[in-house]
Amino acid sequence: MSDIGIVQTKYFEFAAPPEESALENGERLGPVRIAYETYGRLNAQKNNAVLIEHAFSGDAHAAGLHKGALKPGWWDSMIGPGRAFDTGKYFIICSNVLGGCGGSTGPSSINAKTGKPYALDFPLVSIRDMVRCQKKLLEYLGIEKLLSVAGGSMGGMQALSWLTTYPGSVRSVIPIATSLKHSPQQIAFQEVSRQAIMSDPNWKSGNYYGRTFPDQGLALARMIGHITYMSDISMSEKFGRLKVESAEPFKFTADFEVEGYLRYRGDDFVKRFDANSYLYITKAMDNFDALENRPLQEWLKGENVKVLVIAFKSDWLYPAYQSKEIVRACKLSGVEATYCEVDSTYGHDAFLLEVEEESHLISHFLKKVFYEYEVTGNYGI
Amino acid sequence: MSDIGIVQTKYFEFAAPPEESALENGERLGPVRIAYETYGRLNAQKNNAVLIEHAFSGDAHAAGLHKGALKPGWWDSMIGPGRAFDTGKYFIICSNVLGGCGGSTGPSSINAKTGKPYALDFPLVSIRDMVRCQKKLLEYLGIEKLLSVAGGSMGGMQALSWLTTYPGSVRSVIPIATSLKHSPQQIAFQEVSRQAIMSDPNWKSGNYYGRTFPDQGLALARMIGHITYMSDISMSEKFGRLKVESAEPFKFTADFEVEGYLRYRGDDFVKRFDANSYLYITKAMDNFDALENRPLQEWLKGENVKVLVIAFKSDWLYPAYQSKEIVRACKLSGVEATYCEVDSTYGHDAFLLEVEEESHLISHFLKKVFYEYEVTGNYGI
Repeated sequence: MSDIGIVQTKYFEFAAPPEESALENGERLGPVRIAYETYGRLNAQKNNAVLIEHAFSGDAHAAGLHKGALKPGWWDSMIGPGRAFDTGKYFIICSNVLGGCGGSTGPSSINAKTGKPYALDFPLVSIRDMVRCQKKLLEYLGIEKLLSVAGGSMGGMQALSWLTTYPGSVRSVIPIATSLKHSPQQIAFQEVSRQAIMSDPNWKSGNYYGRTFPDQGLALARMIGHITYMSDISMSEKFGRLKVESAEPFKFTADFEVEGYLRYRGDDFVKRFDANSYLYITKAMDNFDALENRPLQEWLKGENVKVLVIAFKSDWLYPAYQSKEIVRACKLSGVEATYCEVDSTYGHDAFLLEVEEESHLISHFLKKVFYEYEVTGNYGI
Repeated sequence: MSDIGIVQTKYFEFAAPPEESALENGERLGPVRIAYETYGRLNAQKNNAVLIEHAFSGDAHAAGLHKGALKPGWWDSMIGPGRAFDTGKYFIICSNVLGGCGGSTGPSSINAKTGKPYALDFPLVSIRDMVRCQKKLLEYLGIEKLLSVAGGSMGGMQALSWLTTYPGSVRSVIPIATSLKHSPQQIAFQEVSRQAIMSDPNWKSGNYYGRTFPDQGLALARMIGHITYMSDISMSEKFGRLKVESAEPFKFTADFEVEGYLRYRGDDFVKRFDANSYLYITKAMDNFDALENRPLQEWLKGENVKVLVIAFKSDWLYPAYQSKEIVRACKLSGVEATYCEVDSTYGHDAFLLEVEEESHLISHFLKKVFYEYEVTGNYGI
C-alpha cells in the first residue's frame, strides 16, 4: 500500500535550560525525548516543511512501512509521492506527543530521579506543552517556519495551538474535525473512559508497571471511544443487527456483531497503548482552550496565517458547528479561513477515511500557500 | 408537588399453569411477583384503564408520594387530576417489569428451588415476557381492554409490544422516544455499560448477593447512560466548562462540573438498582424487534388500534427517525398513527421533562379515543 517504503522512527532528546523546560502548569520536566519520523526532503530554502499532528491514540509513524510490518503508518493514504501531503514536494514531519507512549516521554518513561517509571508523578501536560516540544524538534531540524501544520481531532487542537503559540512559525494550519475547546459532552465521554481505567483494580493509582496492567479498564475505555468515533449510520451499515455465530445467548457474551467488534477493538488497543498515557492525554484535550476568551487577533501578533478548516457531516463527537466556530474566530480577527464540510457517513473516523475529498482539499490548499510563498518570498506579501 | 397524595405499592403473584408461564425463550419461571401501583378509579364499564410503562431504570411508582418520601413518582407531573393521564377520568396502572429490581421478580429475587437469589440462573427475559406479566395483572384486576398503553424509551417498546402481542386488548398505544428495534449504536452503548458492570471484580459472574456489590461498575454503567440521556446542547447549557471548586487539578479528580455531576448520578444510582437487573433488562431491549420482519398488519389480526408517536428533536439516543419508522410501519398497514416531534433541547430525557407539550398531545389523544369508545361502544365502529 505505501509508496514511501521502509521508514524508521528517530529520536530527539533535549534537556533545555530550566526556564524553557517548564511546562504550562509551572512544573519542570526533563530530559525529554521525542519520537519522530520524516518523509520527503527539506529543500534548500527550508520552506517546504509540513508538520503532521496525530490524534489521541496516534503516534509518530504516520506513513511508510516499518521493517517487517504489514500495515503502513496511520495516515499513509494521505502522505507520499503525489498524495495530499506530497513527499515529492514537501518535507513531512510527524512526532509522538509529550505524555504519549509511542516513544516520546510520557508517564511510562523512566523518571531519571527515581530510576522508575513516572506513573502519576508525571506532570500534567497540555496541548501547548506538546507543541512546544515540537518547536524544539523543528529547531533541531533547522526549520524556522513551517509551510503548514495539519491534523485531525487532537491533531487539530495541536494545529490550532501552533496558530496561537507560534504564529510567526507557521504559514498555514489545517485543523480537521476538531474544536477550539471541548464541550461538556466531549469531556463527559473522556471522563467515563478515564473512570473505566481507574476502576480497574490493576490500575493501582497508576503504579502497574512491572505488574499486571489494567487491560480490562483500558479496553473498556477504548470501546466507549470507538462508539463515538463512528456514526449511527456507519454502524448500521457495517453491523446492522447481525448476530455473532458463536454467540451463547442469555450468557451476556457478545450476541451482536457490533458487540464482538467493540470487544475486539478494545482488546487490540491494550497491546499498543499505555493506560496512564490515556489519562494524561485525554486531560490535556479536556483542558485545551485555544483562545482563552481572547480574540484570535491578539494571539497572532500581526502574523498572517492561512487556515483551512475541514469538518465531516456525520461527525457527532466533533460536530461541524465546532469547526464553524474556528472559522468564525478567524473571520472576526480578519484571518483568511476556508471552511469545508465533507458529506461523509463515517462519523469522526472520517478524517482517516475520506481520503479522496480530503486529499483534494488539502493538496490544493498547500499548493496555493507554497506557490504564494515561492513567488513573494514572504507569505502574504 | 403531587396532587395524588400518598400511594402504596401493591403486589400480585401468580403461578400460572406450566405452558403459560413459559417465557419467550422456552424456559419456565414461577412463581412470579409483579409490583404495581394504581391511581384513579376503574369505572363500571371498565373502559377507562391506562397502562403506564416505565423506562429502563424506572419502577411501579409512577405518581404520588410514598409515605415519608420527599420525591413523588417518576412521572408524577403527567399523572393526576387534570393532568395528561387524568386520574379524574382514567384508571392508571403502572407495574415494575419482570427482571427488574423494584419489587417484581428479577435476578435478585429468591429462587424457590434453591432458596438463594437467582443471579444468572434467572432466565433471559424479553420485552414480550414483561408485557405478558402485565396482561396477567390486568386480568387479575378485571380489565379486558385497555384504553391506552403509554411509555417512553423502553416503556415505548412495551407499548409497541402490546400492539403486536395483544392487539385486541388495547384501544390505543402511545410509544414515546422509542424504536421498533435497537440500532447497533444503541446496542453498543448498552454493551459498554454491561462490560462496565461485568468488569467489576465484585460482580463475580453475578454472584454478589450477600457480599460486596459491584457498585463501581454499576455507577460507571450509569454514567455512560447519562451522557446518552442528555444532549450536547442541554449539557452545554447546564454545565458549560465550569470547573469544580474543590478540584485538585492534575490528580484525575473531577475537574469539570460535568464530571462531578456524572459521578454523583452514578453513585446515587447504585443505591436503588441491581447490577444483574441492569444486564437482563438491557439485553431484553437489545433483543427487542417489534415486527420481526412481518408487516404490522399481520400482528394486528384485524384489530383497530390508534397510535400516537412522540419524538424529541434533540434525542440522539432514540433519534426521531426511529419514531418515524414506527409511523411508517403503521401507515403501511393502514393503522391510524399521529406523529409529533417536540422541539426540545433535553435529549432523550425530554420524555420526562417536556411535560407541557407532552401533556397537551396526550390528553387530547386520550380524550378522543375515550370519547369515540363511549359513543360507539366499540372503538373504530
